[in-house]
Amino acid sequence: MTLRPALLALALVLPLGSASATSPPQKALTMQEVLDASTPDDWRALDPENTLYLELAGGRVVIELAPEFAPQHVANIRTLVRAGYFDGLTINRSQDNFVVQWGDAEGEDPAKARPMGEAKAKLPAEFTRTSEGLEFARLPDADGWAPEVGFVQGFPAARDPKAGIAWLAHCYATVGAGRATAADSSTGNQLYVVTGQSPRQLDRNITTVGRVVQGMELLSVLPRGTGPLGFYEKPEQRVPMLSIKLAADVPEAERTRLEVFRTDRPAFARLVESRRNRRDDWYVHPAGHIDLCNVPVPVRAAVTP
Amino acid sequence: MTLRPALLALALVLPLGSASATSPPQKALTMQEVLDASTPDDWRALDPENTLYLELAGGRVVIELAPEFAPQHVANIRTLVRAGYFDGLTINRSQDNFVVQWGDAEGEDPAKARPMGEAKAKLPAEFTRTSEGLEFARLPDADGWAPEVGFVQGFPAARDPKAGIAWLAHCYATVGAGRATAADSSTGNQLYVVTGQSPRQLDRNITTVGRVVQGMELLSVLPRGTGPLGFYEKPEQRVPMLSIKLAADVPEAERTRLEVFRTDRPAFARLVESRRNRRDDWYVHPAGHIDLCNVPVPVRAAVTP
Repeated sequence: MTLRPALLALALVLPLGSASATSPPQKALTMQEVLDASTPDDWRALDPENTLYLELAGGRVVIELAPEFAPQHVANIRTLVRAGYFDGLTINRSQDNFVVQWGDAEGEDPAKARPMGEAKAKLPAEFTRTSEGLEFARLPDADGWAPEVGFVQGFPAARDPKAGIAWLAHCYATVGAGRATAADSSTGNQLYVVTGQSPRQLDRNITTVGRVVQGMELLSVLPRGTGPLGFYEKPEQRVPMLSIKLAADVPEAERTRLEVFRTDRPAFARLVESRRNRRDDWYVHPAGHIDLCNVPVPVRAAVTP
Repeated sequence: MTLRPALLALALVLPLGSASATSPPQKALTMQEVLDASTPDDWRALDPENTLYLELAGGRVVIELAPEFAPQHVANIRTLVRAGYFDGLTINRSQDNFVVQWGDAEGEDPAKARPMGEAKAKLPAEFTRTSEGLEFARLPDADGWAPEVGFVQGFPAARDPKAGIAWLAHCYATVGAGRATAADSSTGNQLYVVTGQSPRQLDRNITTVGRVVQGMELLSVLPRGTGPLGFYEKPEQRVPMLSIKLAADVPEAERTRLEVFRTDRPAFARLVESRRNRRDDWYVHPAGHIDLCNVPVPVRAAVTP
């Protein structure tokens, strides 16, 4: 028997199926077909004022900030980044199937902690926000964690219509601000990214500030720390960060110009449906369902110019 | 402000809370309290006939097989393993937020493929089984992927009472048998493990054979392949497997003696509840819910003897 290396052929980029000009117009599409049929309006460029570049020896991680969900934390992170606060600090934690976290490893010790400069040392918790004024592309499927789930400007999110609140959901690549036990103990100077099974129990318990849109594979493969909670036990195990910069502060030629698939247009609803029921030949049992954190939000190199 | 390194203190091992002998008997427990109160009967030893050791340069990965769900695949894997089929073969694929896969990288080429010896070259698909005779510890919460979800002998599983079938669910650490497009094209000579967000769309579409109970961190950190579907593009990027052995064939002194928390006892129901509503001081908003793939099944070194 021949088993192709492409066994379990379930990539994001699926081969085109049997669709053709003669297909009935209501034919269900694969994700690749949805993307192939997308127009420039279905994509949006990242805003350099809301984009961070985390530079590692192995490459660049691109983070999109979500000021609509955590305006004060995002403003503080911008202040810290612009002052070079993170440059030369380290990734201190990698807990398998959970999170990777970075910041000042000496932050606990007032004598050694790096000064936060003009940034605020105290912020209110920004766990949720009002759902008013928020364009929310709701998913068709039920979710046990929240009354409603969907996407807001490319971010996986949840909403409680009765309480009139919304929040970002903890999916793979979601970035949040670490905190101690006090709800208002985060400032954005310690950040984490989800690298494991969506820890949705964190939703509404911590301030989320954005998501990684490119370079997750640089963070997700970091050796797991062997200390409690996946912290590295020895200082030399920590992973140096060359810098974190705001894209707006980087010369245009050095920017990573990306476009994110818009989640507020009909093409995205088609994409979701293409993932709720996989149409390529490999699948024998389309699920008829998708969880929030299983929905990909495609990112591509910007179409020049 | 002081930010402890143990920010975001959400490990599996939580500190004991304020429980004491004077606590009311109905007090909700943390997971650590549930484990501390467990008795030897709440744990079961791994069966050496159902346990694989995948040996890598970095250490041992322990896999528990699930013969009740895929009897023919498991039998075939035992045959392959006992003949040394996997020894010296490689891990060929690491796709970010999805799977790691191993087997014969030359399996596609009949001239180069390693012979499968006494193992069967063709097996029926074992995507589901009858739910009859299966002790199913059902979770209290709804799941969009299946009518019922829960655990069978430590394995995350799902059940359709109307259809009278059950199957293993694709959670982090679930192991399955790679296949090509034909449903019956898997033999167990290509295996994958889930390393990303639970790809439940695979449920009922592929034969699952077990789960990794120890050593996931050796697989989850493997560099992501840059070829299509996360396959390594160059042979030298593949990760050698020293061997895969059945624990029963390894001298007792060299076995990794593990015990798995039993999922068919009241203590497990208490554990699930401790995770549905986190009780430590860090949480301000207990979720009141848990998804199947967020429920940990604790594993510990066997208590001697």
